[in-house]
Amino acid sequence: MSLSRSQGKLHIVGIGPGGVEHITKRAEKALLESEYVIGNGTYLDQIATIIRNKKIIRSGMGGEVERARKAVSLSKDHIVSIISGGDANVYGMAGIVLEVAEKESDIVIEVIPGVTALSAAASLLGAPVVSDFAVISLSDLLTPPEIIERRLVSAAQGDFVIAIYNPKSRSRKENFGKGMDIIKKYRSDDTPAGIVKNATRDGETVIATTLGRLMEYNERIDMSTIVLIGNSESRLWNNKIITPRGYQKKYEY
Amino acid sequence: MSLSRSQGKLHIVGIGPGGVEHITKRAEKALLESEYVIGNGTYLDQIATIIRNKKIIRSGMGGEVERARKAVSLSKDHIVSIISGGDANVYGMAGIVLEVAEKESDIVIEVIPGVTALSAAASLLGAPVVSDFAVISLSDLLTPPEIIERRLVSAAQGDFVIAIYNPKSRSRKENFGKGMDIIKKYRSDDTPAGIVKNATRDGETVIATTLGRLMEYNERIDMSTIVLIGNSESRLWNNKIITPRGYQKKYEY
Repeated sequence: MSLSRSQGKLHIVGIGPGGVEHITKRAEKALLESEYVIGNGTYLDQIATIIRNKKIIRSGMGGEVERARKAVSLSKDHIVSIISGGDANVYGMAGIVLEVAEKESDIVIEVIPGVTALSAAASLLGAPVVSDFAVISLSDLLTPPEIIERRLVSAAQGDFVIAIYNPKSRSRKENFGKGMDIIKKYRSDDTPAGIVKNATRDGETVIATTLGRLMEYNERIDMSTIVLIGNSESRLWNNKIITPRGYQKKYEY
Repeated sequence: MSLSRSQGKLHIVGIGPGGVEHITKRAEKALLESEYVIGNGTYLDQIATIIRNKKIIRSGMGGEVERARKAVSLSKDHIVSIISGGDANVYGMAGIVLEVAEKESDIVIEVIPGVTALSAAASLLGAPVVSDFAVISLSDLLTPPEIIERRLVSAAQGDFVIAIYNPKSRSRKENFGKGMDIIKKYRSDDTPAGIVKNATRDGETVIATTLGRLMEYNERIDMSTIVLIGNSESRLWNNKIITPRGYQKKYEY
């Protein structure tokens, strides 16, 4: 059927936080319908059982632009999925792929959402992200440090629950401690804080502690960790974090 | 097997944004393993095909505390799922259920994450939420208006992409316009803005416009709408919104 073969499509697929059981049925279907699946090795390995019979294009971390170009180019004539860990939007591939696709006409694109690492981390900690929240990546590869600092200040001032992505990399070990020092100016030491490493994946680690004690776990925090800081109403319970939904005590439990 | 029957479990399940194809495999499995499924009617209807043979406890919007109590009580001896639209954390049931469960001992609880309405809305708009973002509900039922205002100011000052949940209800029609007026003090009128109603459900509507023109669509915005405001780098393209990942132009596309 050469006619249908010439009608390509590009899926930008959020595959979820890690464990293959947290992929959506829509995302799985998109992968199964694809001729090509493109992604970095870590994420391809997470969905290995689904994409066994596909043409796989594997690229390293950091090769996002090249990967996006390849996906856009192939999708003129083929059904292609390019994958993101977590959601396709949240620090995912949707941005770069659309930026590359902007220059091309006639490409059919569907963005397929996924469960974020943030939601997975929150689930493992109980109920820390029930109220308003802000999400900040500490990676200064693409965002200048002064903008990151301004966002940490704003989020802390607004009493948002704060989720930190990319708290550390090999070349930026100090950013995390500096970032927490900014938040500590606005939040008390007994504010609950959670550390979730490899959520729903091999090596999953979940720690519920406080902002004051967070740096005791400094050595265990890396790029595959999400750090959650509660708001002024959050509390620790049973190695979990609960942020009550209601500020005004309208409910009796 | 009376022994296994006496060992209950409570799943707090995020069922995703609406369309049943956006549920995760883990969430579906938890529902299929449950004897009871508890939720409000809208969300139960979204998963009707999955829970056909279950004992269903249906409650109205606003009956969250009663629903949580019932779920905790039943889960002492039965396998129970209590459901949230979107994710179990993000404005979901995890908070209230854990608050109720705090008073009880020996309840086995698993929180199962889901795709948020925010991720679904972002997917439909392309790539608006690729960088740091803040999420704010305009519902002042449980959060005092002055805290909501402070968060709008903080999020706008921090140049976060802003996602608005619960922009309006029947009794709070004015909150949305007031909220946007706060953001307009910090963002230019040509900032991209997206309106997504009933994401992945019947009646899905997606509008990409600007902050300056947002109020032209005022009549179409209700409780089932997510409003997204871009940051200073976001741009409109082809009825979509792209927020570039990189502030520093490190890439050539």
